[in-house]
Amino acid sequence: MKESVMSYTPKRTVKGDVITMAHGSGGKAMRDLIEDVVLGAFYNPELAQLEDQARIDLAELVAQGNRLAMTTDSYVVDPIEFPGGDIGTLAVNGTVNDIAMSGAKPLYLSCGLIIEEGLEIDTLRRILLNMRKAADQAGVQIVTGDTKVVNRGKADKLFINTTGVGVIPEGADISASRAQPGDKVIVNGYVGDHGAVILNARGDLMLEVELETDCQPLNGLVECMREVCPDIHCLRDASRGGVATVLNEFAESSGVAIRLQEADIPVRNEVRGVCEILGLDPLHFANEGKLVAIVPADKAGTVVEAMRQHPAGQGSAIIGEVESGPAGRVTLQTGLGGGRILDMLIGEQLPRIC
Amino acid sequence: MKESVMSYTPKRTVKGDVITMAHGSGGKAMRDLIEDVVLGAFYNPELAQLEDQARIDLAELVAQGNRLAMTTDSYVVDPIEFPGGDIGTLAVNGTVNDIAMSGAKPLYLSCGLIIEEGLEIDTLRRILLNMRKAADQAGVQIVTGDTKVVNRGKADKLFINTTGVGVIPEGADISASRAQPGDKVIVNGYVGDHGAVILNARGDLMLEVELETDCQPLNGLVECMREVCPDIHCLRDASRGGVATVLNEFAESSGVAIRLQEADIPVRNEVRGVCEILGLDPLHFANEGKLVAIVPADKAGTVVEAMRQHPAGQGSAIIGEVESGPAGRVTLQTGLGGGRILDMLIGEQLPRIC
Repeated sequence: MKESVMSYTPKRTVKGDVITMAHGSGGKAMRDLIEDVVLGAFYNPELAQLEDQARIDLAELVAQGNRLAMTTDSYVVDPIEFPGGDIGTLAVNGTVNDIAMSGAKPLYLSCGLIIEEGLEIDTLRRILLNMRKAADQAGVQIVTGDTKVVNRGKADKLFINTTGVGVIPEGADISASRAQPGDKVIVNGYVGDHGAVILNARGDLMLEVELETDCQPLNGLVECMREVCPDIHCLRDASRGGVATVLNEFAESSGVAIRLQEADIPVRNEVRGVCEILGLDPLHFANEGKLVAIVPADKAGTVVEAMRQHPAGQGSAIIGEVESGPAGRVTLQTGLGGGRILDMLIGEQLPRIC
Repeated sequence: MKESVMSYTPKRTVKGDVITMAHGSGGKAMRDLIEDVVLGAFYNPELAQLEDQARIDLAELVAQGNRLAMTTDSYVVDPIEFPGGDIGTLAVNGTVNDIAMSGAKPLYLSCGLIIEEGLEIDTLRRILLNMRKAADQAGVQIVTGDTKVVNRGKADKLFINTTGVGVIPEGADISASRAQPGDKVIVNGYVGDHGAVILNARGDLMLEVELETDCQPLNGLVECMREVCPDIHCLRDASRGGVATVLNEFAESSGVAIRLQEADIPVRNEVRGVCEILGLDPLHFANEGKLVAIVPADKAGTVVEAMRQHPAGQGSAIIGEVESGPAGRVTLQTGLGGGRILDMLIGEQLPRIC
């Protein structure tokens, strides 16, 4: 893919410094924007045809598995650039991860841009180049796209939708409804980083913390996990709503209870600090590179060991286990032997986190 | 699919009349919104699992063709409801049509909602139900989705992204680059209706015209066309930028010229009226149920005849032909024997038309 980047040298046809309504009208100005800025970042032979739809060889897909996974996410994060990432890296990794959580190999993404009139073209170039980097890192291609521009004040700088498809290998049977009593709960590292970074980046907290988003692709990590444990029961990335919400969904869908050991959950001191100031729980904070897995107890040690060998899983840990009931209940066992019920996120704690 | 609708009776769990930030936070309020309003409209067994990704049997896809078509579009039309349709019907038909223009059978859609805080929940219900109706009419299923809410003033009521996949049957080789000298240019009826309706619905024109959007699915019509002419050369729906922009894209990609006969292009008097007032060209007006086809000359009559038998093609007509050059030029032959060059849309003539 690096060669194909080299083979496309976009003409700098876009004039001016900011996006205008003309860039969204379907005419010449839009075509210039697409050929210069969008293809300049995303170039690959499929996209370069500028057809209204990408065409993907089905035989190649079938060679990799028996089911197509398809997922969509719109990204509206505020601010659009923040320590360690931006809305573009988020839009690629978030959708790659949603695909990967079915055990699938993510392959192709679409990219739908809604741009507010007045966005700086340099900002757009920077974000799209970061999307391309993230796509290369995750091993996916952006094969089809769409660009809309809305008047100033009718959107907030930039919203991005990515929709992804991938192929699920035969034998993968991962579902929120498969948690069984005795199973172990695993996370792949520190929880809550992304949520804390975004809250801090908005400037309301005025904290001097050295935090970066955990935004990263998880498909490679999931492949490692499946190699040592093909029968992963449940798998979800803990984005909006955090680890607590994912576990509540598992407990509800599977009709089981889940008990976490608070002391075993990796949380950075900086994140804990942000949480204490705001009276929030890091288990409700969004992550963009963290997964929650439920696996059979006899495989849990092996899975964690394999995960720790992968760059995206160095901080992996077993944080709890599945119990027979009460169905749908998630409990946090605290240090002093007590426990408290850990509910789904209710209300509007963290708007526009992703 | 009608049976499955009957089998789901959503609990009316959503409280209040309007969307609040809590409906987008990934927690309980969002889950209520999805189970009540979204599943209430879109219910099908795949979506009802509420997994983060849909899973589609690849064997079923391979049985229908050899390539997957994938396309994406974000819809930002203003106003969101207008005579003959709304942003939801547009979001389904627009993406269905982009898939169909490759000759593919559209099968599955994703739906990404970006909702502005304060949108009436009844409006959202109405629009999603219309999306369901449009999906049923086009024979596609909405299998995965995402919902985001942004603060008041940070979006404009509702934006919808739909991404579609379909299967291209073996033998279809439709491309913007295949127009050949001698080929005929066909449209399936009156052009410019959608653009005129939206301009009028914004209330700036104060015209008393009886116009409705032409928004409709075109996949059935394309199937009819392919039955009598498997070798369609070029096919595109004339949405943003209108018929003129599509023809300029064909002429440029194929390195040919195209000459249209103005007298043969079907335009309603009401649309002509709107255009005359504004000094605009109906060939630059957006359509949401109109395609432009380029077919071999010896098949053109048969194709038009077949199209006229289909509800979406009753007004079909041959409107011009392909010439060897100058490459990229589109000319409109006027009644008096003169001709004028018909360029792509330049500038911001019709913002937020789709």
